[in-house]
Amino acid sequence: VNRDDCLNEDSRDPLAPLRAQFSLDRVDREGVIYLDGNSLGVLPKAAITRIKDVVETEWGNGLIRSWNSAGWITLAGRIGDKIATLVGARPGELIVADSTSINLFKALSASAFAFGYGLTGPFAASKASRILSEKTNFPTDLYIADTFAREQGMELVLVDEPEIRGRLKDGVAILMLTHVNYRTGHMHRMRELTQAAHDAGAIVVWDLAHSAGAVPIDLHDADADFAIGCGYKYLNGGPGAPAFIWAHPRHTQRMDREGWRPPLSGWLGHAQPFAFDPYYEPANGIQRFICGTPPVLSLAALECGVDAVLAASMDAIRAKSIALTDLFIALVEDRCAGHGFTLVTPRDSAARGSQVSFAHSAEGYAIMQALIARGVIGDFRAPDILRFGFTPLYTRFIDVWDAVERMRQVMTSSEWRDPRFSVRAAVT
Amino acid sequence: VNRDDCLNEDSRDPLAPLRAQFSLDRVDREGVIYLDGNSLGVLPKAAITRIKDVVETEWGNGLIRSWNSAGWITLAGRIGDKIATLVGARPGELIVADSTSINLFKALSASAFAFGYGLTGPFAASKASRILSEKTNFPTDLYIADTFAREQGMELVLVDEPEIRGRLKDGVAILMLTHVNYRTGHMHRMRELTQAAHDAGAIVVWDLAHSAGAVPIDLHDADADFAIGCGYKYLNGGPGAPAFIWAHPRHTQRMDREGWRPPLSGWLGHAQPFAFDPYYEPANGIQRFICGTPPVLSLAALECGVDAVLAASMDAIRAKSIALTDLFIALVEDRCAGHGFTLVTPRDSAARGSQVSFAHSAEGYAIMQALIARGVIGDFRAPDILRFGFTPLYTRFIDVWDAVERMRQVMTSSEWRDPRFSVRAAVT
Repeated sequence: VNRDDCLNEDSRDPLAPLRAQFSLDRVDREGVIYLDGNSLGVLPKAAITRIKDVVETEWGNGLIRSWNSAGWITLAGRIGDKIATLVGARPGELIVADSTSINLFKALSASAFAFGYGLTGPFAASKASRILSEKTNFPTDLYIADTFAREQGMELVLVDEPEIRGRLKDGVAILMLTHVNYRTGHMHRMRELTQAAHDAGAIVVWDLAHSAGAVPIDLHDADADFAIGCGYKYLNGGPGAPAFIWAHPRHTQRMDREGWRPPLSGWLGHAQPFAFDPYYEPANGIQRFICGTPPVLSLAALECGVDAVLAASMDAIRAKSIALTDLFIALVEDRCAGHGFTLVTPRDSAARGSQVSFAHSAEGYAIMQALIARGVIGDFRAPDILRFGFTPLYTRFIDVWDAVERMRQVMTSSEWRDPRFSVRAAVT
Repeated sequence: VNRDDCLNEDSRDPLAPLRAQFSLDRVDREGVIYLDGNSLGVLPKAAITRIKDVVETEWGNGLIRSWNSAGWITLAGRIGDKIATLVGARPGELIVADSTSINLFKALSASAFAFGYGLTGPFAASKASRILSEKTNFPTDLYIADTFAREQGMELVLVDEPEIRGRLKDGVAILMLTHVNYRTGHMHRMRELTQAAHDAGAIVVWDLAHSAGAVPIDLHDADADFAIGCGYKYLNGGPGAPAFIWAHPRHTQRMDREGWRPPLSGWLGHAQPFAFDPYYEPANGIQRFICGTPPVLSLAALECGVDAVLAASMDAIRAKSIALTDLFIALVEDRCAGHGFTLVTPRDSAARGSQVSFAHSAEGYAIMQALIARGVIGDFRAPDILRFGFTPLYTRFIDVWDAVERMRQVMTSSEWRDPRFSVRAAVT
């Protein structure tokens, strides 16, 4: 493979025209190669005019009337329906609200409810009181689950990935996993693990933060129970974009019948918010998980980001994602050989999300800073991981080539040894 | 008083020049009088350029680097410090995060902790297990508190305003009140009620949704325990702007010493978020109440809204607020006499926020729609309340005159009887 081969790949890439959806002119002009869409997706051009319209016309001129006239009140559900098509959910089952952390709290509470009436009998009758998760799950998931478990008299048990199946029958009420690991890019087999958990009588919560918009997902096919996810990574929703939550209809139907109250029972999750009833009555279905008033500006940007993904098929995105990540792995291992990089991401593309991580002993931080100084933006995750995200909608094959070439230059020149690259920033 | 008197008042108004901070040109051109800043504040012009910059430059070009280079990571605290100056809090004590509903959940949990080590001895030793609030408190507060109380084995007790003091010694652990009532505009005496609650051994949570930016508040002078508030009303932060939470340092210091975990223990409330530690360790002080990643676009707009308030003194805002609301009451009672309006808001300005509400038997909804059709935007709260909000930064005395004149016309013409005005919208 050489640089011309990469240019040829780009010229044959059916997704290539969709890159124009994104605001990359200045980034390209500055010679920046952005491989961090797994942390913050690139700005869709449509968001520029949409946000201007929301600010100046809808807020500025429409004012309070825009809750009706501009459809703000239905925005969270409308975007939810769009995300649903990306994750194998049906219209009305998924809603945009709050942050991933807060939606996980709601999903855990709902899981405890679901386990209570559950697949294998009442919670009270069961000895199961554990939440099982992976040690390397994203920390916020572990923090939220640990606090939830303590409050509920449950226990959070953390294991390594290969141990998960073996521990399922060990008193597990809830299996909580992130579909694609934020550090390694390892992707779980959602369908098989969900089945194994159900066989053991557990409820399954999937965090799709690093997979929604990046890999094909079919929540119904997997028979998942609950899912949450992030708006600002592969959904390109902008910094801190609102998150989403999904529940299988078998659970929301049960909630409807029993009038189940979510733990964060805010007014917009009430059956009739504008009746201003002093007593809470949950809305039906997934609507009950909306809590307070959503941040409309951030919501509007998220819709543009999701629309940009919907312009492609998830199968085409996945095919290119595998090609990009395969190429990156091959090129780094070839052209940066002997420089101490060890592949952390699964070599088997079926077990890989849309990122590639390399470990580099104790020097990973400085190497990443030197790379960023050369215009290759990935990120570093302590203690030793360099992460590179590939968003098929805007990452080109030539970007992969050029990134690895700069990585080679950083290593052969030893420029990463410059002390300024070891200065830690607030956000890494 | 006549129309010229109002024009004269405006010409003498020291706050008049600050109206130019707001994007009201088109609203004025269309003859709209906006008396709903208590529900959604007007767009500050500064937000137009700021949001454009955040979207196009910070997100579009800076991308992930903007968490450091554009200061996104410190934005919630920086805005918190600005809001602090409006409510008598000190730097570092108040943080912007999530929604009002979610912050109330955090504050209630913190209150239960504070009550536990509390003013009168350990929670376990006390029989107090009640959360006391007002029947007419904003519903989301009641819903969140009711669910919280059920989860904790506590009880939410709702009383009418005059009964509050008398019930404090009746097993109350937490007094939860909204400073200015959303329906009536009645303002509680924060200092006296806090003292009475403390005397009874209770912890006090104040919801400042309808008072922050509208009336002077001094949380330290009142010796309050916890406070929350809304960003999109008198703080002009835009639709669904993030909310805030404050805790008295005596409580956060105790939390620090005991390593107290907030109930929503998200990663940005960790002592070292970027260590990606699998185990949660709360950040010190108010920072622990940040949960997930904040919606940066909506945060940036909120800062512009808060800056617009900071351009005036709260005393000047209050003086004009009283003058505007006094005038509105006097004019409606004079010029709309005999049309069935009954003042709901306290006639005593010391007990009034910055809104005026009139009840109108069963016809309030249609009258408000007819008023809106005539360009006077207030809102309706079931079953019978017409609400009018006055934001001294942009509401003029002439607006008050003209609004009442149109109200008179709506009533004398009976145009509100047109059936189209009875069609209920999704959001009222």
